[in-house]
Amino acid sequence: MNSDTICALATAPGGALGIIRISGAQALEILSRIFTKDLTTAQPNTIHYGHIVECMAIPSPQIIDEVLVSVFRAPHSYTGEDSAEVSCHGSRYILNKVLEQLIQHGCRMAEPGEFTKRAFLNGKMDLSQAEAVADLIASSNKATHDIAISQLRGHFSSLLAQLREQLLKLTSLLELELDFSDHEDLEFADRSELLSIANKIDKHITKLTHSFEMGNALKQGIPVAIVGKTNVGKSTLLNRLLKDDRAIVSDVHGTTRDTIEDTIDIQGVTFRFIDTAGIRQTQDTVEQIGIERTFQAIQKARIVLWLIDQQPSNEEINEILQHTENKKLIVIKNKTDKADNNSYNLLNLPFVAISAKFGTGIEELEQSIYDAADIPTLADSDFVVTNARHYDALVRAQQSIQRVIDGLQAQLSGDLLSEDLRQALDTLAEITGGQITPNEVLGNIFTHFCVGK
Amino acid sequence: MNSDTICALATAPGGALGIIRISGAQALEILSRIFTKDLTTAQPNTIHYGHIVECMAIPSPQIIDEVLVSVFRAPHSYTGEDSAEVSCHGSRYILNKVLEQLIQHGCRMAEPGEFTKRAFLNGKMDLSQAEAVADLIASSNKATHDIAISQLRGHFSSLLAQLREQLLKLTSLLELELDFSDHEDLEFADRSELLSIANKIDKHITKLTHSFEMGNALKQGIPVAIVGKTNVGKSTLLNRLLKDDRAIVSDVHGTTRDTIEDTIDIQGVTFRFIDTAGIRQTQDTVEQIGIERTFQAIQKARIVLWLIDQQPSNEEINEILQHTENKKLIVIKNKTDKADNNSYNLLNLPFVAISAKFGTGIEELEQSIYDAADIPTLADSDFVVTNARHYDALVRAQQSIQRVIDGLQAQLSGDLLSEDLRQALDTLAEITGGQITPNEVLGNIFTHFCVGK
Repeated sequence: MNSDTICALATAPGGALGIIRISGAQALEILSRIFTKDLTTAQPNTIHYGHIVECMAIPSPQIIDEVLVSVFRAPHSYTGEDSAEVSCHGSRYILNKVLEQLIQHGCRMAEPGEFTKRAFLNGKMDLSQAEAVADLIASSNKATHDIAISQLRGHFSSLLAQLREQLLKLTSLLELELDFSDHEDLEFADRSELLSIANKIDKHITKLTHSFEMGNALKQGIPVAIVGKTNVGKSTLLNRLLKDDRAIVSDVHGTTRDTIEDTIDIQGVTFRFIDTAGIRQTQDTVEQIGIERTFQAIQKARIVLWLIDQQPSNEEINEILQHTENKKLIVIKNKTDKADNNSYNLLNLPFVAISAKFGTGIEELEQSIYDAADIPTLADSDFVVTNARHYDALVRAQQSIQRVIDGLQAQLSGDLLSEDLRQALDTLAEITGGQITPNEVLGNIFTHFCVGK
Repeated sequence: MNSDTICALATAPGGALGIIRISGAQALEILSRIFTKDLTTAQPNTIHYGHIVECMAIPSPQIIDEVLVSVFRAPHSYTGEDSAEVSCHGSRYILNKVLEQLIQHGCRMAEPGEFTKRAFLNGKMDLSQAEAVADLIASSNKATHDIAISQLRGHFSSLLAQLREQLLKLTSLLELELDFSDHEDLEFADRSELLSIANKIDKHITKLTHSFEMGNALKQGIPVAIVGKTNVGKSTLLNRLLKDDRAIVSDVHGTTRDTIEDTIDIQGVTFRFIDTAGIRQTQDTVEQIGIERTFQAIQKARIVLWLIDQQPSNEEINEILQHTENKKLIVIKNKTDKADNNSYNLLNLPFVAISAKFGTGIEELEQSIYDAADIPTLADSDFVVTNARHYDALVRAQQSIQRVIDGLQAQLSGDLLSEDLRQALDTLAEITGGQITPNEVLGNIFTHFCVGK
């Protein structure tokens, strides 16, 4: 099935170095055809200096690059196969040329995520760990990074293993009941004990499914809406919040951060501003974005920043309160630099006083935003589900368990319950890929990877 | 001088992998402070799997990433110092965090080109080889790649060494003459032999300085102008030529090629179109770009493509010929799909017939463009100078040699000539950095490098 040898560029083009990755039974043999040293007898986990050339079989072949090759041997490699990494000078021409030569000598280009897919298929990691690899690469802040690392290290997998163990215990107790159902004199686990186990399982899964809302928000960025009248300073506030710590990596390479535009990191959590394009436009024009649009933005947000610079009427306050019922509302009194600011009557709503223009109160505001996000402090045993596929499986597993609980309460016989238990077990196994995973599912998972991983 | 340990990201951010490079006496010690294995006793050229953590000195430190570390030991490393490369998951957050930790534990961020600068200062390569590293990374086609590889492998350095040897021979012959100048009965190398050696050196240097025009053109792309009347099909032809083979690397990562927009590669040589923005505009509008602008474009070009779709007047032909006197002119008869095409009288000018619209004749045209560039076939002993600093030094060396030749012919005494010879020797030594190179010169050279190399 994995008899072919794959290659891909594993780094983004444009750096000082470019790494080309090769994996498969023929990896070292193919590479040796275009490398000035024979790698087929190379020790595992060693590094070899030499030249990549067009072909070692011709007399004085053209040199493509001076490289370092790292050699890994099955099963102690990322993929579990023989593999190699070629560290080249980061020129597009060179990287193309090396890939071309590898392909000419017997490799094929890897599909997205194919190295990790092979790691999964060769038993180096389970499916949820494989998915954590993609999450880890995509992680842009502490929160998503920590969840991905935890998942990659198998914390979620072992949590699921515990759940499955409990389910198996329940199953075996029920099957015991089945096997001996004609021996009326035998003692079985009584139904209340079974029910208690089932409820415990249900509670665990519920906790996981509930964590998905937070996990998803952490992954996408927690949505924040800034509302307020024209000229109250929404744009100034937004720019003030966005003027954030540039990353070392970004600085060094002079890269722009446009993909994460209009998001800020507070204490390792990403907050994403909704509809800020509108905010930026309205600053220079008359109030052209109607009330309706504001309320649409509020609807999509978890946290609403209501910016004011004068006493709002009770009607205004009530309207805002009405529209933010299920949201976290932070009232912000802007323009503290002006005199008449502290005397508003806000019907006892808590507020933060700032000057967006001068930067006063911004740290306090960021703390309020962070607090409003209500990030749970996770114990080591906790886990936040961030993956929609996992969430979907957990919800289905929970439905099965719920049917078991209902059945137990309705005094249904064991054989009627065990089908649901089996389903719950299978559904949980989908997450880690413990059963045979359909190719279609694998395809869906790994196409979202980048090439070279 | 290099007592500090430096670190930098060596790959572009955004790939599956990111490589962080560390070099200096403390490299393995500092890295061991944040890596789950002790690397201070690791064998050279070995790879180590483990975790990068916040600090090994605290009880259960936070894990930043699961990584592979490559260990290199002085003097057998790129820089000649102890060094390491950490292969991380390519997340910006992780790469920043690892760099942060390295800096907190005693590294400092490397300056652009600092790894290569250290390689030079530690005698791992001479200055022209160091410069070849930057050229190699920047190389985007076969021509510039081949020159950079040749320079990196020391071909230019050994050519210069030969020149210096000849100069030293000349010097010693002259000094012999000096030492024994009062013994009139001694036999010296006669002046005609000295002159012959000097002329030979001059010829070699001239060959190198002359190669710079080509070297520079290869590096920047050979400038091509497309001229012709409105609606003759300039824009269609340009688009036809630009619709080139996308590179594997570009394809895979979906990167745009905007930095090399409006250039094409023909047989490994880059051709750069001048003023094509204007060409693209004029297609839809009336002739708004005057004759003058056309002639400006011609002036900047080496190759001029004159596109016609009807019989030009003799005045027109003469005007074009007059303005392209020192250029390569290729007359292109467009719209061969239309009937009356082959009957033009072009005063015996050679031409290529194409249909830009249907793509006919484009390959033939590309061959004509390549031929017009007149790329020399280089023997192994030849070298093309691509670096302005080298060119400058060669020109100055040549001036010194010219003074020697003039002096020999004017029968000047040896002591008057040897100053010029010494100057020629020193000037050539500047190229490889054989003498002590001023910090300012080093600074100029290495600031043009990318960080991490």
